Amino acid sequence: MPKLWNETIEAHRAAVRDAILDAAWALVAERGLMSVTMAQIAERAAIGRATVYKYFADVESVLAAWHERQVTAHLQQLAAIANRPGRAVRRLESVLVAYARILRQRGEHGPDLGALLHHGGHPAEAQRHLAALVRGLLDEGMGGGEFRADVPADELARYCLHALSAAAGLPSEAAVARLVGVVMAGVATG
Amino acid sequence: MPKLWNETIEAHRAAVRDAILDAAWALVAERGLMSVTMAQIAERAAIGRATVYKYFADVESVLAAWHERQVTAHLQQLAAIANRPGRAVRRLESVLVAYARILRQRGEHGPDLGALLHHGGHPAEAQRHLAALVRGLLDEGMGGGEFRADVPADELARYCLHALSAAAGLPSEAAVARLVGVVMAGVATG
Repeated sequence: MPKLWNETIEAHRAAVRDAILDAAWALVAERGLMSVTMAQIAERAAIGRATVYKYFADVESVLAAWHERQVTAHLQQLAAIANRPGRAVRRLESVLVAYARILRQRGEHGPDLGALLHHGGHPAEAQRHLAALVRGLLDEGMGGGEFRADVPADELARYCLHALSAAAGLPSEAAVARLVGVVMAGVATG
Repeated sequence: MPKLWNETIEAHRAAVRDAILDAAWALVAERGLMSVTMAQIAERAAIGRATVYKYFADVESVLAAWHERQVTAHLQQLAAIANRPGRAVRRLESVLVAYARILRQRGEHGPDLGALLHHGGHPAEAQRHLAALVRGLLDEGMGGGEFRADVPADELARYCLHALSAAAGLPSEAAVARLVGVVMAGVATG
């Protein structure tokens, strides 16, 4: 059964890759971004150094892959929230709260990977996906009068994401909730 | 009268400095950021090259000084608007419109000086001044119930400036006005 065999190989490769990324991130959290080596990553992942080099050329590639995996997971999380049942205005609020928390945690705990990897935080493609997600909710709710209709949905989506970037420096979850309340007051009716 | 003499010298120096900055900016606008030389700046300002070097070590220093002069002028413009008579909520709106226009013009016409000069757009100190200006207006209007009082003024100021950063990519003055309307809906009462 070559198909099953291939699937097994694929699953194995994905597991090795994930183990490398997890090990790299644990090391970065412990020792800081600049002091992690490929040898340490291999040791922490309990994988041979030669194998690690089959997957990634250098530490920066490992961290870029970790970052991409993280961004993808966040987008999936936000899309799942957007696709829940219920009114668009409540789902948008939940998406904004979740995104603001991501921004705040990244600002507080994570090292500044975006700067290291030479792109500003979330890659541009992820930003476009997120803007489309928010815009979809706005479009959906505008029909039912849940959002103001005097401003195009793409401009409102842009406003939401820029305003939420203020979350990165907020001192508490309560402040995040207040920020989302203010942002929603800009777009929601009544 | 040594005092008058000193004042004359100071005024002369300021005029030479301004002429150098104006010349540099005209050249950048014509030829782009990377192709301007000190010799061209001297020629355009009709000042000897040796004199230009007495004021600035290199082109980057000239452009940094131009940028600082620009930022200071913008802050003075915004402070003048904030200090007009009238209700705080209207003055805040006028400040936000003026700032959004500055951001939009910088995004559209200006070369990316902030990136070249290794700080992100407006220097941090100017951002702090601007946040204090916006916060002052919010504090002033909160007493009279012009702004929501359930969120601290510093968080509202932070929200305003982050949300306004969306102005940098907007296609028209009308879109800027819409953005400011949305931002104001987040902070103003009724």
